[in-house]
Amino acid sequence: KKRYNIALLPGDGIGPEVISVAKNVLQKAGFLQGLEFDFQEMPFGGAALDLVGVPLPEETSTAAKQSDAVLLGAIGGYKWDKNEKHLRPEMGLLHLRRDLKVFANLRPATVLPQLVDASTLKKEVAEGVDMMIVRELIGGIYFGEPRGITINENGEEVGVNTEIYAAHEIDRIARVAFETARKRRGKLCSVDKANVLDASILWRKRVTALASEYPDVELSHMYVDNAAMQLIRYPKQFDTIVTNNIFGDILSDEASMITGSIGMLPSASLGESGPGLFEPIHGSAPDIAGQDKANPLATILSAAMLLKYGLGEEKAAKRIEDAVLDALNKGFRTGDIYSPGNKLVGCKEMGEEVLKSL
Amino acid sequence: KKRYNIALLPGDGIGPEVISVAKNVLQKAGFLQGLEFDFQEMPFGGAALDLVGVPLPEETSTAAKQSDAVLLGAIGGYKWDKNEKHLRPEMGLLHLRRDLKVFANLRPATVLPQLVDASTLKKEVAEGVDMMIVRELIGGIYFGEPRGITINENGEEVGVNTEIYAAHEIDRIARVAFETARKRRGKLCSVDKANVLDASILWRKRVTALASEYPDVELSHMYVDNAAMQLIRYPKQFDTIVTNNIFGDILSDEASMITGSIGMLPSASLGESGPGLFEPIHGSAPDIAGQDKANPLATILSAAMLLKYGLGEEKAAKRIEDAVLDALNKGFRTGDIYSPGNKLVGCKEMGEEVLKSL
Ligand SMILES: CC(C)[C@H](C(=O)O)[C@@H](O)C(=O)O
Ligand SMILES: CC(C)[C@H](C(=O)O)[C@@H](O)C(=O)O
Repeated sequence: KKRYNIALLPGDGIGPEVISVAKNVLQKAGFLQGLEFDFQEMPFGGAALDLVGVPLPEETSTAAKQSDAVLLGAIGGYKWDKNEKHLRPEMGLLHLRRDLKVFANLRPATVLPQLVDASTLKKEVAEGVDMMIVRELIGGIYFGEPRGITINENGEEVGVNTEIYAAHEIDRIARVAFETARKRRGKLCSVDKANVLDASILWRKRVTALASEYPDVELSHMYVDNAAMQLIRYPKQFDTIVTNNIFGDILSDEASMITGSIGMLPSASLGESGPGLFEPIHGSAPDIAGQDKANPLATILSAAMLLKYGLGEEKAAKRIEDAVLDALNKGFRTGDIYSPGNKLVGCKEMGEEVLKSL
Repeated sequence: KKRYNIALLPGDGIGPEVISVAKNVLQKAGFLQGLEFDFQEMPFGGAALDLVGVPLPEETSTAAKQSDAVLLGAIGGYKWDKNEKHLRPEMGLLHLRRDLKVFANLRPATVLPQLVDASTLKKEVAEGVDMMIVRELIGGIYFGEPRGITINENGEEVGVNTEIYAAHEIDRIARVAFETARKRRGKLCSVDKANVLDASILWRKRVTALASEYPDVELSHMYVDNAAMQLIRYPKQFDTIVTNNIFGDILSDEASMITGSIGMLPSASLGESGPGLFEPIHGSAPDIAGQDKANPLATILSAAMLLKYGLGEEKAAKRIEDAVLDALNKGFRTGDIYSPGNKLVGCKEMGEEVLKSL
């Protein structure tokens, strides 16, 4: 039997609920494929702040680094919103990404036929949307130095951040994107602001230079403002998108909302080697925390990505994806994706249904 | 009779067509209110590059600065896309904004009842959308230093830009936004990324500090990634949005696409004093240039903004706005906003119709 160590980071809000459900699904799907998991649950985010005063305790970082893959729930909440910057749950997440060196964030945005009505886009625009956003995750303006708030020569406060990309940082994310596009429909759109930003000029130059190594992939370029429009105008034009950290943050959230079912969308963050980080793209939803209302499918599908991208266990991953579709086909819906004629269930019951379908 | 000097910068692509139509409308609306205009047409963008080798000739900058207001068409085209950065039409626009010190870019995004079907959003989501995006236009990462592409200690290329805001730059744009919200529905949403960026932390702090001076305005804050989602999920929640240069670039394009009629949307860029810059938010559309297919309404409505915000001639502005609505009510449509049952017209004919309606 193959054994894997999985670090579980439930985090805050609905995090613990969705993680507990996803853990059971992961366990059963693995069992059916002859895999065994050792789960290690660690404090993270606001939960860790309350417990030990920092959002990413040393032990949590170490456990994550020593695991085979990390499954994360969600972080943050009103309670810690007024904390100083370094004592905010979000900082824990940024440091965890950095510690794990997971530079490539894969965010699928898919409109399932079962859920096409959940989109605020017209049916004919939303239906069939199936794209993958590849976002650079540990560079750019999120981490660039110098940064901070200082006083200038007029005695005035000045806030500074640095958008910075070295050639090798662009190359490695571009390669992940070309490989991803190659396994999909062979179209890659690189998004930048090369008409204004120097960092984007270098970005475009490096991505363009790599294209000759991927003759089977059709590369195009788009400015970020235009991309924000095109995602609404005609989202089906996109297959794979690659972009920097901040543009990826914005565009992937926009794309996920186009699907209308943000409670359904998983993500994978991967490095050159070492454990990947898998998490739903939704937040911690403190308003519905502890009420058994959360949609666990994004976390369950993140567990599927963990199997596929993190452990190379494609068959077990496929089992989970199929089970999720089966539960949807049977009409089970949590509140966020409910429409009349379907069966409204809570977080746990949705988990039970996926387990049954496995 | 009041006389005003208007600098006309037709620019590239469809720019000259829409400017020529908008000029006639401006002239007639002014005439009806007892205003006279001296128009000075100057080369700008790609047209200036072809003529004198730079996108913003000294004479054009001077004419703009000495005018009472500047009306701009559009810039850019395939022809100049491969130029070095400082020889691109876009750089002319950035320098013009800087020269005119127009730090406040007002971009309305309104869904007209006549055109609600043009949106890719569902009717019930799109209808009634009416927001104003106030974008900081001459600061932030667009202009911050250091910037450029350099070689690091490993002999590798590195691209750098600097997001930087001083307190007074935030304060002055925030004031414009509070004033704008006050004249609208009294709601202001400030968009930033204060959970990650130091420049955003200062932004939020300064905007928050000003709120006490505008007790009649309800201030809220939103992260930029969430804003990109909320614009699609429930755009009616927004009245006035204020944000930095790069986020404003992305979100205002997203918001304009939500209306489905980007060929309809004007913009105004204003400084503390001195001439404002008025331009449609659409681009130069080289693919349809010279074919009399362009929608001139965005430029005509920019002329209305010029009258209202640039010259304080609200009555003349209102005449233009009413005439545009009248032409739409009569069913006249250019190709971009055409739907069956209406009358398809070209750029010039649409201009004639607006003139008739004046
Ligand atoms: C919580 C925040 C720091 C984070 C980010 O900006 O990366 C989130 O928005 C995301 O996209 O995962
Ligand atoms: C053309 C480009 C430099 C410009 C910008 O980024 O400001 C445009 O996108 C705009 O929004 O007016």
